[in-house]
Amino acid sequence: MKISELSRRTGVPVASIKYFRREGLLPAGRATAATLAEYGEEHVQRLRLIKALTTLGGLSIAATRDVLATVDQAENTDKTLEAISYALPVPVTAASAGDADRDAAAESAAAADVMDLIAAMDWQVPGTSPHVRGLTTALRELRRLDADYRPERLVAYAELAHSIARLDLERAAAFDDSPALAEQAVIVLALSGPMLELLRRLAQEDQVRRRGADHPDAE
Amino acid sequence: MKISELSRRTGVPVASIKYFRREGLLPAGRATAATLAEYGEEHVQRLRLIKALTTLGGLSIAATRDVLATVDQAENTDKTLEAISYALPVPVTAASAGDADRDAAAESAAAADVMDLIAAMDWQVPGTSPHVRGLTTALRELRRLDADYRPERLVAYAELAHSIARLDLERAAAFDDSPALAEQAVIVLALSGPMLELLRRLAQEDQVRRRGADHPDAE
Repeated sequence: MKISELSRRTGVPVASIKYFRREGLLPAGRATAATLAEYGEEHVQRLRLIKALTTLGGLSIAATRDVLATVDQAENTDKTLEAISYALPVPVTAASAGDADRDAAAESAAAADVMDLIAAMDWQVPGTSPHVRGLTTALRELRRLDADYRPERLVAYAELAHSIARLDLERAAAFDDSPALAEQAVIVLALSGPMLELLRRLAQEDQVRRRGADHPDAE
Repeated sequence: MKISELSRRTGVPVASIKYFRREGLLPAGRATAATLAEYGEEHVQRLRLIKALTTLGGLSIAATRDVLATVDQAENTDKTLEAISYALPVPVTAASAGDADRDAAAESAAAADVMDLIAAMDWQVPGTSPHVRGLTTALRELRRLDADYRPERLVAYAELAHSIARLDLERAAAFDDSPALAEQAVIVLALSGPMLELLRRLAQEDQVRRRGADHPDAE
């Protein structure tokens, strides 16, 4: 199909398609003339994946390129899943929380909380994981907030997170190692988060409304 | 305390403190001289909350102002919780997914999926909720991705999201209607999401590693 048809099929403007080509996110079409290229279904699927990662997944163009490169180099599904997981942006980083704001006591206390949690959950994760660092930063800031913060509460959240990850991986487990199925893994890993957040917000709304109904005297 | 001490206590630069003052996020200190103001513990707590919302919560200054205004106008905890929930940025919006990309069939199918899910969960949420719109957009894009997408799977995620929201609200339920405790509610609602995402990623890492260990022949 021509680029105009590719644009119509995917809802991605022609200019954006050309941009993704230049940035190396989208493979070239088959040249049919000096200025014409023929695109196929693989381009439609890849464009939809790029769109999902950059919009729903909230990935930058650079992060999207990293994730797609990982997908295209897929050796086996497990390695691909870990590589994708590490390529996705981490919601909390030390930088995002402000490195200027150092507090050795809170930092080490938070690091201990994270290690205790990982031990309690018997999670096999390296201390170098960006998610370990992110969680440590988040707990450090919560400690500094004097929030009603109790490390033991984390276990309840961690157990639910574990169940959610099991759902995610059940979907990924069916995948063989073809790039097409690695793409499905990207969708699962990158888009489960935003979807889960929306579901959690809806459930919060429901429970707040029910609380209001339970004791209208609260009005 | 002087502004320099306030900065030291919170790790927020003096220039940022003055900026938050100008933007109306932080109340004025008690003037002790033409150019001097005395700040108290309430300023320390408010600055830490602003920092948590803007860094860990990923809120813009405008969104932070909205949330803090909601906190300060707290009538009762339930109303405050809903107002805060609506003031927080929605992870997926129609705009973020590109309004140019219209697909009436996918749109209505997604809307039906969301309504079915809400009915299945017996969630009391208005169709006007930004989270209903966000979820509809997310499902529309997933449908268009030809992802291995099955609406019935959503129920399993929704049930876990429901349990997580219960944990969130259990923490909020203890709060009375004082602004200080409304602040705790903000922390719960705004920061549970990023924390949960990190826990989910850690659990995914653990399960991927165990899968690899289960069948090393996959190497």
